[in-house]
Amino acid sequence: MFENQERTNIEQLGEFGLIDHLTKNIKLTQPGTVKGVGDDAAVLDFPGKKVLVSTDILLEGIHFDLAYTPLKHLGYKAIQVNLSDIYAMNGTATQVTVSLGISSKFPLEAVEELYEGIYLACEKYNVDLVGGDTTSSKQGLIISVTAMGYAEEKDITYRNTAGEGDLLCVSGDLGGAYIGLQLLEREKQIYLENPNIQPDLEGKDYIVERQLKPEARKDIVELLKDIDVKPTAMIDISDGLASEILHICKQSDKGCNLYEDKIPLDPMTYETAREFNLDPTICALSGGEDYELLFTVKQADYDKIKLQMDITIIGHITEASAGCNLVTKAGVVHPLKAQGWNTFKS
Amino acid sequence: MFENQERTNIEQLGEFGLIDHLTKNIKLTQPGTVKGVGDDAAVLDFPGKKVLVSTDILLEGIHFDLAYTPLKHLGYKAIQVNLSDIYAMNGTATQVTVSLGISSKFPLEAVEELYEGIYLACEKYNVDLVGGDTTSSKQGLIISVTAMGYAEEKDITYRNTAGEGDLLCVSGDLGGAYIGLQLLEREKQIYLENPNIQPDLEGKDYIVERQLKPEARKDIVELLKDIDVKPTAMIDISDGLASEILHICKQSDKGCNLYEDKIPLDPMTYETAREFNLDPTICALSGGEDYELLFTVKQADYDKIKLQMDITIIGHITEASAGCNLVTKAGVVHPLKAQGWNTFKS
Repeated sequence: MFENQERTNIEQLGEFGLIDHLTKNIKLTQPGTVKGVGDDAAVLDFPGKKVLVSTDILLEGIHFDLAYTPLKHLGYKAIQVNLSDIYAMNGTATQVTVSLGISSKFPLEAVEELYEGIYLACEKYNVDLVGGDTTSSKQGLIISVTAMGYAEEKDITYRNTAGEGDLLCVSGDLGGAYIGLQLLEREKQIYLENPNIQPDLEGKDYIVERQLKPEARKDIVELLKDIDVKPTAMIDISDGLASEILHICKQSDKGCNLYEDKIPLDPMTYETAREFNLDPTICALSGGEDYELLFTVKQADYDKIKLQMDITIIGHITEASAGCNLVTKAGVVHPLKAQGWNTFKS
Repeated sequence: MFENQERTNIEQLGEFGLIDHLTKNIKLTQPGTVKGVGDDAAVLDFPGKKVLVSTDILLEGIHFDLAYTPLKHLGYKAIQVNLSDIYAMNGTATQVTVSLGISSKFPLEAVEELYEGIYLACEKYNVDLVGGDTTSSKQGLIISVTAMGYAEEKDITYRNTAGEGDLLCVSGDLGGAYIGLQLLEREKQIYLENPNIQPDLEGKDYIVERQLKPEARKDIVELLKDIDVKPTAMIDISDGLASEILHICKQSDKGCNLYEDKIPLDPMTYETAREFNLDPTICALSGGEDYELLFTVKQADYDKIKLQMDITIIGHITEASAGCNLVTKAGVVHPLKAQGWNTFKS
């Protein structure tokens, strides 16, 4: 990476020079940002609102592989995964801080590319970058993001408030990010075995983008407001559908029935899973990183929800004693299990 | 480390099991913490106040060396360095989030020890732990903390508001954390060369503690309120006195005279610097990690400040064209330079 391109040495700039360089063109757009980068702390204002705060850390070799992850996409994704948590509270995201650990061997141009993605995400989602920390790392690239936002107290959706009989809903489609990752891993292996073979990702744009450039579902939060539906509980899908459903059920002290045939799968996800001899349903249940919203709504909201193209009703909430169940296409009832990534790793 | 002690495998607990285990006994003390750990985002309330947010990342091999840093101290320090930024805004710190990257080879007992220090700092400084992210790391220990707090708008102290003629003040004493580090590094080298020789830190508790277990100066913020002094500018000393003075002067578009003979040095710092053939003044100017507060006050506040045992007036602010100067004990005037850690590395 960057072998044939311009390389500017970060060590010469130093930490403060680097921060100045990367932040000099920041445009603040949030009226609540009183003071952004450049002091000991950012100063923010949320008059009359509750403040939402969430944080995630992304590590090279654990969460991303620079062999197939463009830095601009990585910066974009690091912001998205954090904004997704604010939207999952039914809130408006307004600010982020970004802390980076970067090898001093990284050229300035690489850090600039990473920041391009960060700024692109901030601009698109109307969020201000207001602070951070930049340090050299002996340990690969490290990205730690904290996202802030706000909501009226009455609008906040927690995980522990799903009610019996509520409809279980999900935005978008599932499993694509995981299948996209399988594809990227396969092409990486082929390339490592024979560097003359170029990656073949043709026609697979959708699932590759689901992995490399997810979009947090701000639009769904806005849509739900527009149709006057407040979810009874909500969570974002970072660890796979099964894990997130179980979080809601456990914290709400409820059970659920999830119907396999209702789980929304994109045709490309389905076909590519089959190519890999993977069960598309398991990809959706345990694959993770889709950053869709999983939420419950009262049955009375059924008519409003059923008209929405981008929302699918996939089951309903039951009493706790009924357990959390997956009803398969064949009508067989299995206890729902959160297996997460490890399912696929052995 | 931990060779002869109980070892519980983190991999078996999994991420959620680990988080549950570490956070199950959290006691929330801040009335503004509406919802802490356990949802997509924490929910906080700061009625009528401005919100302060600051973030810092600590990396193994860059910011700390586990060869001589007890994990409990490290957890404590990770919180302190972040709270220090909130106090440097003249604010009240109220919440933190903590993201960790931990090798899966770390036993649970090690993570518990780290958290003991985190909780100890939170308890002592009356701050709630409200969220975070925990992941396995292939890259050594990574600790990313975000601190939040609040202040009335009129009370906030920025870096860019020092006025000509203002007095330059500092809390506590300087250079100790750096000298403590030199001592720990020396004992590590001796131990590596001959593991039968035990570290000799006797009588050096003060400077070792300055390095391993710094205390953010919440008390100084409270003291200044009690004596009714609002600093005209303030910053915390993480990178050495010179660097921080230059930040205030540059951002305020001012110059300064700093008097070498006024810089507060603890006798142990002075003596140990001499043992290492280091200039104690340079340790204070460029050593860093003292986490004292550097601030400017109006001359009219001189009578209030001069009575405070733990605050030292070390110079004054001048017009920008006069430059930033160090007046040595011999009366020679040198331009003040921020050399930071690198001074000592060659």
